[in-house]
Amino acid sequence: MDRALRERAQAVIPNGMYGHQSVAILPDDYPQFFAKAEGAYLWDVDGNRYIDFMCGYGPNLFGYGHEAINKAYVDQLQRGDAMTGPGPAIVELAEAMTAQVSHADWAMFCKNGTDATTMALMTARNHTRRNTIIRAKGAYHGSAPWCTPNPHGTTPGDHAHQIFCEYNDVESLEAAVREAGADLAGIFASPIKHDTFVDQELPSPEYARRARELCDEHGALLIVDDVRAGLRLARDCSWSLVGVKPDLSTWGKSIANGHAISAMLGSNVCRQAAGTIFVTGSYWFAAAPMAAAVATMGLVRDTDYLERTVALGERLRRGLDEAAQRHGFSLRQTGPAQTPLIMFDDDAGYSKGYLWNNAMLKRGVYFHPWHNMFMCAAMTEADIDNTIDRADDAFAVVKASGPLEPVAKLAWRRRAA
Amino acid sequence: MDRALRERAQAVIPNGMYGHQSVAILPDDYPQFFAKAEGAYLWDVDGNRYIDFMCGYGPNLFGYGHEAINKAYVDQLQRGDAMTGPGPAIVELAEAMTAQVSHADWAMFCKNGTDATTMALMTARNHTRRNTIIRAKGAYHGSAPWCTPNPHGTTPGDHAHQIFCEYNDVESLEAAVREAGADLAGIFASPIKHDTFVDQELPSPEYARRARELCDEHGALLIVDDVRAGLRLARDCSWSLVGVKPDLSTWGKSIANGHAISAMLGSNVCRQAAGTIFVTGSYWFAAAPMAAAVATMGLVRDTDYLERTVALGERLRRGLDEAAQRHGFSLRQTGPAQTPLIMFDDDAGYSKGYLWNNAMLKRGVYFHPWHNMFMCAAMTEADIDNTIDRADDAFAVVKASGPLEPVAKLAWRRRAA
Repeated sequence: MDRALRERAQAVIPNGMYGHQSVAILPDDYPQFFAKAEGAYLWDVDGNRYIDFMCGYGPNLFGYGHEAINKAYVDQLQRGDAMTGPGPAIVELAEAMTAQVSHADWAMFCKNGTDATTMALMTARNHTRRNTIIRAKGAYHGSAPWCTPNPHGTTPGDHAHQIFCEYNDVESLEAAVREAGADLAGIFASPIKHDTFVDQELPSPEYARRARELCDEHGALLIVDDVRAGLRLARDCSWSLVGVKPDLSTWGKSIANGHAISAMLGSNVCRQAAGTIFVTGSYWFAAAPMAAAVATMGLVRDTDYLERTVALGERLRRGLDEAAQRHGFSLRQTGPAQTPLIMFDDDAGYSKGYLWNNAMLKRGVYFHPWHNMFMCAAMTEADIDNTIDRADDAFAVVKASGPLEPVAKLAWRRRAA
Repeated sequence: MDRALRERAQAVIPNGMYGHQSVAILPDDYPQFFAKAEGAYLWDVDGNRYIDFMCGYGPNLFGYGHEAINKAYVDQLQRGDAMTGPGPAIVELAEAMTAQVSHADWAMFCKNGTDATTMALMTARNHTRRNTIIRAKGAYHGSAPWCTPNPHGTTPGDHAHQIFCEYNDVESLEAAVREAGADLAGIFASPIKHDTFVDQELPSPEYARRARELCDEHGALLIVDDVRAGLRLARDCSWSLVGVKPDLSTWGKSIANGHAISAMLGSNVCRQAAGTIFVTGSYWFAAAPMAAAVATMGLVRDTDYLERTVALGERLRRGLDEAAQRHGFSLRQTGPAQTPLIMFDDDAGYSKGYLWNNAMLKRGVYFHPWHNMFMCAAMTEADIDNTIDRADDAFAVVKASGPLEPVAKLAWRRRAA
């Protein structure tokens, strides 16, 4: 069934699929199409069930098809969704998010994470009447011409006025600020270093504090891009954990547990600048995803989802380390336990990782070899323990395989590195 | 209730609202917040009912809350929506849209109209390895930095490599092509001239054919931006009506009757270029809006919605002209009958229009004074006849008003014009 759909897709979609959900460069057996999702589980179109550690690449925080969140969505859909003006839900959601996120005095809603980061870029430039922004090398902030990681179809002007520094490297950040000189409009920061293909890093408090200081010294805006990690590390902006308040933060993915909505939150410092850029979208004022987001924010406030996903992530991490050691492997498990990335030591060609991930997949565990994963609150301790058992079997597969060739479909990546 | 919500919104949303659904520059009595929508009708939060000729600024084609479309959405939502990969619906929808749109061999889906136009821009630049695009002055193609009508927060580089011509003016188009020289990547075209604040114009066949020829001569791509008018003028790309096939077309608004999805469709000429840009979004692969779009495309194919909205629009146009004449007014009703724009002759300050639209609003008719409107298939002849009756009363209000001051909140517009 997956194969038949891929053939049909080849005819009517360029390359058969596009964007981050194309499986073109994942291990060979990864299915492209899914039929069903429920709680922590996913079924492909051939009926195979997986416990899903990708959570839709982030949106699934409380479990797929969460009853209360979907009820809020459907109830509002029946009253009215994409109308000629917003419903009261836009006010309720702005109130709920600004109450939850300590740096935020106001909110604006959009659809894509990229909408939110682009609005933040425009707000910083409008606020300062300057152009230059600083970003960390390799950090993903979306796929618009100014930030897409692939230059095809963009012009040099699209990514002009950007200076790159090394994440967590204070000297590199300071050098970038010196280079920006009097034109510094803002500093973008991922809440953690969650770049693909490399180990994750938590932000050093020195780096985060220095970014805040430098913005204050130069009248620039500090922007934390919490699209991917927001609500997974804290019930507040992720940098609240290091005691740093940005001027702007960008949100998406989990804020409505999968319903299409993203947001830019900001402080009063830049309220006027945010209010004078022109940004809009056909569905930005639709009420149903806002009602779902209000319900999600209620669960964020009132449940132990955060402690629960941390505990489940730590249980997984411990169990995988023990299982790897039993088979003579050493893992690099980086980032917060609730957004894990798992790489093999001594695996420059990604071949151990690909073989192991593929073996996990065949055993009903959907892991990702080079993108951070996500725990969701619908997972149970039994799910984690079963995953560790499957991992034990998958490590045995890798051990039995003997020497491996580098992964051919990642040759471009090794050349780039 | 609307007033109370506006006060709360002022605290947590810059200016209390933003984007195209802010009523800041609409006539004074226009409500900001809506509680309910059903069929052709809309209720504001104070319980006032309106027949809605804005249709959510376009998305409502078959009636708000359309049962079959929403059932397709909710059924898919219950199976799985924003999963770790797409569902079969993405293939079904790409097949349905390429079957319906004669120039299209393939499809890519996204969320905003702006996503689709930005993807088309990138595809044209990637296909040609050139930068310059030609657009008509005043035409709206979205709110990204490259196309937002307001420069705040953008850099000169964002809108570099763009040459503007006059819509429907072949000489102006030819001059733009000469100016682009060897760097011409593409020509963007609105399917009709549907700019705000000015009369609409149908495309002259000469202009459309010349745009096609010039693209062919120079190896550039022709892009029809059908986000706003798509499916309202034809069951195919809108320029099928003038016998011109673009290389790319962009879609949104009505394709899922209000559910959040947009699309870029293209021909095989630029399949490879579309397949090598990197574009993606958190919710772009969500299955529920795709299922709703498949249902909508079925209704497009199998019902007389198009003939019906044309007939209703013509009935409205005739009736309004007759009513205006009875009161001594002369209207400029421009564009296709199913996407009407209604302006008063001799109304440079927009004051007659604002007074009349406000009077219509108070009588339960939601019209727009300077943005094209939309008929939907849920409207009935009785709805139209009632609207004409209300218009008769509203013309009497304008007639009784005596001389009027120019609309103060549009002073910026008169300065710009």
